[in-house]
Amino acid sequence: MKKYNVAVVGVGAVGVEMLRVLHNRKFPCGTLKVMARRPRTIVVDGRSYDVVETTAQAFDGIDIALFAGTEGEKGAAVTFGKEAVSRGAVVIDNGADYRMDPRVPLVIPEVNGDALKNHQGIIANPNCTTAVLLMPLGPLHRAFRVKRVVVSTYQAVSGAGGKAMDDLRSQAASFLKGEKVIDFGSFPDQIAFNVLANNWKIDDQGVSNEELKVVKETHKILGDDRIAVSVTTVRVPTLVGHGESVYIETEKDVTPQAAMEVLRRAPGVCVVEADPQDGIAHCPTPLMSAGKEATFVGRVRADLFSSKALLFWVVGDNLWKGAALNAVQIAEMLIEKDWLKSTK
Amino acid sequence: MKKYNVAVVGVGAVGVEMLRVLHNRKFPCGTLKVMARRPRTIVVDGRSYDVVETTAQAFDGIDIALFAGTEGEKGAAVTFGKEAVSRGAVVIDNGADYRMDPRVPLVIPEVNGDALKNHQGIIANPNCTTAVLLMPLGPLHRAFRVKRVVVSTYQAVSGAGGKAMDDLRSQAASFLKGEKVIDFGSFPDQIAFNVLANNWKIDDQGVSNEELKVVKETHKILGDDRIAVSVTTVRVPTLVGHGESVYIETEKDVTPQAAMEVLRRAPGVCVVEADPQDGIAHCPTPLMSAGKEATFVGRVRADLFSSKALLFWVVGDNLWKGAALNAVQIAEMLIEKDWLKSTK
Repeated sequence: MKKYNVAVVGVGAVGVEMLRVLHNRKFPCGTLKVMARRPRTIVVDGRSYDVVETTAQAFDGIDIALFAGTEGEKGAAVTFGKEAVSRGAVVIDNGADYRMDPRVPLVIPEVNGDALKNHQGIIANPNCTTAVLLMPLGPLHRAFRVKRVVVSTYQAVSGAGGKAMDDLRSQAASFLKGEKVIDFGSFPDQIAFNVLANNWKIDDQGVSNEELKVVKETHKILGDDRIAVSVTTVRVPTLVGHGESVYIETEKDVTPQAAMEVLRRAPGVCVVEADPQDGIAHCPTPLMSAGKEATFVGRVRADLFSSKALLFWVVGDNLWKGAALNAVQIAEMLIEKDWLKSTK
Repeated sequence: MKKYNVAVVGVGAVGVEMLRVLHNRKFPCGTLKVMARRPRTIVVDGRSYDVVETTAQAFDGIDIALFAGTEGEKGAAVTFGKEAVSRGAVVIDNGADYRMDPRVPLVIPEVNGDALKNHQGIIANPNCTTAVLLMPLGPLHRAFRVKRVVVSTYQAVSGAGGKAMDDLRSQAASFLKGEKVIDFGSFPDQIAFNVLANNWKIDDQGVSNEELKVVKETHKILGDDRIAVSVTTVRVPTLVGHGESVYIETEKDVTPQAAMEVLRRAPGVCVVEADPQDGIAHCPTPLMSAGKEATFVGRVRADLFSSKALLFWVVGDNLWKGAALNAVQIAEMLIEKDWLKSTK
């Protein structure tokens, strides 16, 4: 079996998961080069990785460069992405910098994998919230033509990085001891035992950059900018796993049964069915989604007022399907379809 | 000043807040009789209350009986409500039992206080989620005629009672120690560091009883059953304060400016304005709403795809405006308007 020289750039919350996913999925790595701003040795699941400094030269001989990226500031892909491509690598960037670039495919393999075909060296991974949303929304759009989506998110703190996870833990410990939480850490307010609808920067219309990403990325991935996407992004005190409460309006009539039939056939989607017999909805939670490859859909139900509307709940691991796993799946698809052409 | 003999029935999470609210608002109590299944002495904010057993006779001489109620099982108001009325009391029930009874006004004083006028002895307090939602929705409906509401909730565990608060605290403490949480207590799954979209019983259509309450109570309070109300109720690991992410469609054009103008004038509503200058939305949180009388609205913003749609975020103390405070405000309005007629 052919092997590929892989680079992972960045070893924060997402970079570490990329190493884990590459290992778990037995990705055919030749050399695996781990890069970051600060050289060091890290240990993931008992495996030791030497981290070298990210430089242009370090990409020589690399076939696939996975940039762990960042949602906020400009990521390493801005500095080194084109360098890596010019040295023969295909870049898969989890950061936000290239997603809306018309020359860059923005891809969820199960939803719009064909967009990878004509890549020009750089491929973008969607925002975690978009990825989790589109795993069910993509197939539903194809089946019923989605006209409007209203989504409210329940986003885990790991989306804000590894330090944010420590911040939540230490705030929660203080709070339980009866202490007043003074240090908000990565957050604009206390996150432990609280909910923040203002965890992202807003524009002059009051829309958060996270909300705008979901709108634009949904349009690009589904190739349809007529879909009205109304998003409210909210940070909740969970560590891993983004939950999303979704309402859709469709052009065609939709029933929960028909929607579930579509979702059961959708690759990567796991439908959790309610059992009204015991009166408790079996329903996926962020906690159960952590470290799982599937995106879980539950509480699929009819709207009480329209036969062209549907409600459901979806959760997925924001670090996996929302980041590291999706990036590795892109790499796998490039190999499988023989689309991993160097563009140097 | 005239004084009234008041009974508080039930001393769980809501009953205790009723005692607190009566004291804080200097309600003109003559005798204050506290009743519960089990006689005992309780202390609230350093004040001691003798709790007597709830019996029919105990309502003799009572002018106003506040039943703390329960969302789940049949509340004490079913057993004793009509008895209390027949002995001359006006009953204000926080439970769910009488809310949809056509003879019973379901009231948020700031929204539909006039419905109190022709009460027949029993008055119902809305569900906590409905109360918090309708504080802004009522005035917006009057101004712009709401056709559709899509709401996703972020509900605090105190809505499930005092024990649920202890459950969250002890689950969180275990989790932080690295222990596996085995005892879910009042919940169908772990609530600490997790989010539960299945915390309420569902019907054979997959709709939760909490969701259905919001639909029906919204129709009754606004006197308009044409409003399409699509609700997803979700429990989050907060102790007090329900957050709600709300999308509305209106018959008339609506702008954030016009909506905020309406909300600024709405009694009991506090509008928190975003300041895009500093890039961070000032935004109300469940934690800051706890123990506050106002319902806080934030992140009022235009929909990106329609001039007849609007998005906002609302939080309110589920035990106060969502329960105890609203009940006491009903009593105050009955007195102020001279509608506190005995119907025995």
